[in-house]
Amino acid sequence: MHSKRYYTLSGSCPDQVGIIARVAGFIAQHGGWILESSYHADDGDGCDGPGSDVRYFMRMEVKADSLPFHLAEFRERFRPLADELSMTWKISDSAVKRRVVILVSKQEHCLYDLLSRWQSKELDIEIPCVISNHDTFKAFVEWHGIPFHHVPITPDNKAAAYAEIRRIYDDVRGDSMVLARYMRILPPDLCAAYPGQIINIHHSFLPSFVGARPYHQAYQRGVKLIGATCHYVTEDLDQGPIIEQDVIRIDHSDSIDDMVRYGKDIEKAVLARGLRYHLEDRVLVNANKTVIFR
Amino acid sequence: MHSKRYYTLSGSCPDQVGIIARVAGFIAQHGGWILESSYHADDGDGCDGPGSDVRYFMRMEVKADSLPFHLAEFRERFRPLADELSMTWKISDSAVKRRVVILVSKQEHCLYDLLSRWQSKELDIEIPCVISNHDTFKAFVEWHGIPFHHVPITPDNKAAAYAEIRRIYDDVRGDSMVLARYMRILPPDLCAAYPGQIINIHHSFLPSFVGARPYHQAYQRGVKLIGATCHYVTEDLDQGPIIEQDVIRIDHSDSIDDMVRYGKDIEKAVLARGLRYHLEDRVLVNANKTVIFR
Amino acid sequence: MHSKRYYTLSGSCPDQVGIIARVAGFIAQHGGWILESSYHADDGDGCDGPGSDVRYFMRMEVKADSLPFHLAEFRERFRPLADELSMTWKISDSAVKRRVVILVSKQEHCLYDLLSRWQSKELDIEIPCVISNHDTFKAFVEWHGIPFHHVPITPDNKAAAYAEIRRIYDDVRGDSMVLARYMRILPPDLCAAYPGQIINIHHSFLPSFVGARPYHQAYQRGVKLIGATCHYVTEDLDQGPIIEQDVIRIDHSDSIDDMVRYGKDIEKAVLARGLRYHLEDRVLVNANKTVIFR
Amino acid sequence: MHSKRYYTLSGSCPDQVGIIARVAGFIAQHGGWILESSYHADDGDGCDGPGSDVRYFMRMEVKADSLPFHLAEFRERFRPLADELSMTWKISDSAVKRRVVILVSKQEHCLYDLLSRWQSKELDIEIPCVISNHDTFKAFVEWHGIPFHHVPITPDNKAAAYAEIRRIYDDVRGDSMVLARYMRILPPDLCAAYPGQIINIHHSFLPSFVGARPYHQAYQRGVKLIGATCHYVTEDLDQGPIIEQDVIRIDHSDSIDDMVRYGKDIEKAVLARGLRYHLEDRVLVNANKTVIFR
Repeated sequence: MHSKRYYTLSGSCPDQVGIIARVAGFIAQHGGWILESSYHADDGDGCDGPGSDVRYFMRMEVKADSLPFHLAEFRERFRPLADELSMTWKISDSAVKRRVVILVSKQEHCLYDLLSRWQSKELDIEIPCVISNHDTFKAFVEWHGIPFHHVPITPDNKAAAYAEIRRIYDDVRGDSMVLARYMRILPPDLCAAYPGQIINIHHSFLPSFVGARPYHQAYQRGVKLIGATCHYVTEDLDQGPIIEQDVIRIDHSDSIDDMVRYGKDIEKAVLARGLRYHLEDRVLVNANKTVIFR
Repeated sequence: MHSKRYYTLSGSCPDQVGIIARVAGFIAQHGGWILESSYHADDGDGCDGPGSDVRYFMRMEVKADSLPFHLAEFRERFRPLADELSMTWKISDSAVKRRVVILVSKQEHCLYDLLSRWQSKELDIEIPCVISNHDTFKAFVEWHGIPFHHVPITPDNKAAAYAEIRRIYDDVRGDSMVLARYMRILPPDLCAAYPGQIINIHHSFLPSFVGARPYHQAYQRGVKLIGATCHYVTEDLDQGPIIEQDVIRIDHSDSIDDMVRYGKDIEKAVLARGLRYHLEDRVLVNANKTVIFR
Repeated sequence: MHSKRYYTLSGSCPDQVGIIARVAGFIAQHGGWILESSYHADDGDGCDGPGSDVRYFMRMEVKADSLPFHLAEFRERFRPLADELSMTWKISDSAVKRRVVILVSKQEHCLYDLLSRWQSKELDIEIPCVISNHDTFKAFVEWHGIPFHHVPITPDNKAAAYAEIRRIYDDVRGDSMVLARYMRILPPDLCAAYPGQIINIHHSFLPSFVGARPYHQAYQRGVKLIGATCHYVTEDLDQGPIIEQDVIRIDHSDSIDDMVRYGKDIEKAVLARGLRYHLEDRVLVNANKTVIFR
Repeated sequence: MHSKRYYTLSGSCPDQVGIIARVAGFIAQHGGWILESSYHADDGDGCDGPGSDVRYFMRMEVKADSLPFHLAEFRERFRPLADELSMTWKISDSAVKRRVVILVSKQEHCLYDLLSRWQSKELDIEIPCVISNHDTFKAFVEWHGIPFHHVPITPDNKAAAYAEIRRIYDDVRGDSMVLARYMRILPPDLCAAYPGQIINIHHSFLPSFVGARPYHQAYQRGVKLIGATCHYVTEDLDQGPIIEQDVIRIDHSDSIDDMVRYGKDIEKAVLARGLRYHLEDRVLVNANKTVIFR
């Protein structure tokens, strides 16, 4: 994390000799000062022989005022090289705040935690609004000066309700949607509409205990650790690329209520870390997995 | 944690044959249903030969409606046995909420975290007021319906200011005081006035990095983990009995700002766990150490 | 852990008022000094209303020379009380070493680790023999003065081979069998013959990744932590009661080989902890779960 | 970790624009395939303004057969660029095994652990000999086919004994010396003679509990976690650059003996990780700290 303004260039492409040299060369040639850089070549299951499909991932932070031009021109100038390398890429500006829409139900812990980080600017984002299927946190959210949208979901209004959520998200020009223990399953078309933008916190150490009531499942199985998983939402429930996970120790004396309580602490910590990686362009999706440049 | 009303009997005494039998016998004789019980004999450095000073610690939760009398009568009837065993003891009622006064400065994370737990009744306490040397969180605290006292501390008013804090704490009949990253050092007489009632969260893994700016110290030393310590406040700064500790991994790429940020997550988690142990009478002080019956 | 000789009494029974009082009373009445004691009432899913089936678990360590009689007489005298409480129980003597048979294949890490602990008497057991389907570690084991039995398993000799393992285990009067990364699946009749005696270390955080090649499964799913599980072996593969688990963090740069390597460290640590709990009668099986009195 | 032969180039230099571009350019120009690469710019306390002394660290793995020449020629050709950048650097060949001399006293756990990893080639090194001030492990070490030198240390022979250790280390052309719970303090001149080559495992979470009997110190202070620290040995006892650390949770019921036992597990794990980082040139010393390219 740097206090100065910087650009973050991230992307991936088929591996070949000389990628770093060419990308870093492009930046150096314009006087760009690289503050931080990370590279990873994914050789799949360990067999990177000829003909295999090794993919190359990279992320660089470049001091903004070390370059003689702004992002639009950077994009223009970098595009030919990126095309030559068949690179999927993006560049973002630390001075432009990300716009994160939070979805919440009745559980408070992730919401308080996110607003706490936002309040102190540790999480230096815009929260254009909070959306909920309950009005539990309306006054609390509005007290922070953040608009609150109550969009109830009933068996009869699902299509309309999720359309409303899309409309709000588009209206406020959200670039990330956080399901902060939003206890509803988003419809596939909504998931598909915003790939790599929707982040969920699941209250188990996936792939254990998919689906409903994971703490009850964990209690029944008698595991000695419980966990939480932050992942991108895809059309397949609980199957999206995992961004971050963590666990906490429990023992035989812990009831399901105790597990829920311990779990909250893990959930909010894991969500906060995963969201930060996402916001800082540290997460590169690699099929159903992620590369995380911490 | 039980959903039903229960009494918690905790105490310590010199070890001898038959303590459990006599205490559990007393409870059984009145039909008391023990929900949870823990015992520990501290044999010091491992040498518990004749003449050594082994101390015995215990904690029991007894279902309230299994006993034919209430706390006042329990105390009356139990006293002779306790006296015979030279036991220091207390009994509390899960239906009587503890009264916890929170002291805070300008950092938000522990305050948000505690209010989040209070809001959901996970932390089932009264917060009669929040006291701060700044007015940063006045509106936020008051929004929760909790009184806020702004008691500035200046080089010139120290004695008066701390006297004011004592007065407020006594007035609201606080039974626990939480320094939730309250960045001032309490005067010795205040610490001495409330032994075992004042809980602090120190932002290092004590005994490493006592005193000011522990993250700077940690950064200079190049440690690979940073931590936090929840402890009782005594007259000796950073030397009180430790209740709970935890750590998180860092690496060479983390700046001091990053460490502060990671540290916040550990601080609030450790404080919340330590406070819960305290509130549930799970912490028994043993000279400068603690017995924690988790 | 006590350096003095002690007896460990452990058991479980239907919960009722007065169990601790009666058991501790029995011990006190004979002058028994309780060094350590633990109790747990399992109220299932948290609903312990009338008619529910709450089970009570206990474990006590009693200083051997504080009692006026030896184990045989203790058993005789305690039986009536135990019967009255419908208690399933046992008592063991810290001076009688447990007899642990180790089964191993070609992986060295758990074997070296166990023998290291045995060599230093940290693990104060008899190892009457090591059995393997390969002869890889014959010389190494024999160098320690421990007999080694090579029992190859082929598609054609399975029944005979497992019968041979049973014969050896019975012959040496083993009381515990440790599968120290023994890469074969024991037949159901062998598992059923020694309930609560056979301990396995599975190289995943169960219930994730049951069956073969869990690290490959973990790699494919892109999890951020991998783990290991120590459990009792039952007729249902990977489904037995879990004794201990732990995890370690990995990231996108770790190959399957790296995961196998990290995993080894977790496997041996988890197996060693789980085995210790078992040997010290700290594990009480509760249907398909365990109570662990650490 | 790659199964193929590769060269590891690591080094550090004053930061400036274009370092990555020039180094990666040099490699690309000769067709070198970069398998893994890491960079770090240390901006000290976060103030990297003009005039500050930002240092740049890097590590690259290059596929050996992608380059048209061998190490000697690489060194020749790379030197002018390195000199221009004022870079301190080295390059090593994964096909050349490191020569690690192990020093041990009477504790077995780190020795068994290292030999276990060596036996399975997980630790793919030469161990030209083990040196000890006791002959406890002579037969065990020799059984592995590794020479064992018994060099007793007495109050009267210190200078001669440490001279003998130096002679042996030089004779076998050791490039790393591991103090695997070697319970003697090396003299300053020996430490100074092999900077960055001697690795110690200290049985506390430094900087807590420096000096003797750290578990006793930890017990007295009542900490809730104990740890271990792997560090380079310098002339200042327990003050060398930290390579790796970890901790484990304890509680009030743990005696000093229990802490010693838990500690062993952390010590061997931390030493093994730290040693691996060292052997793979992942550790770059930065004054009294380390950069670890995991």
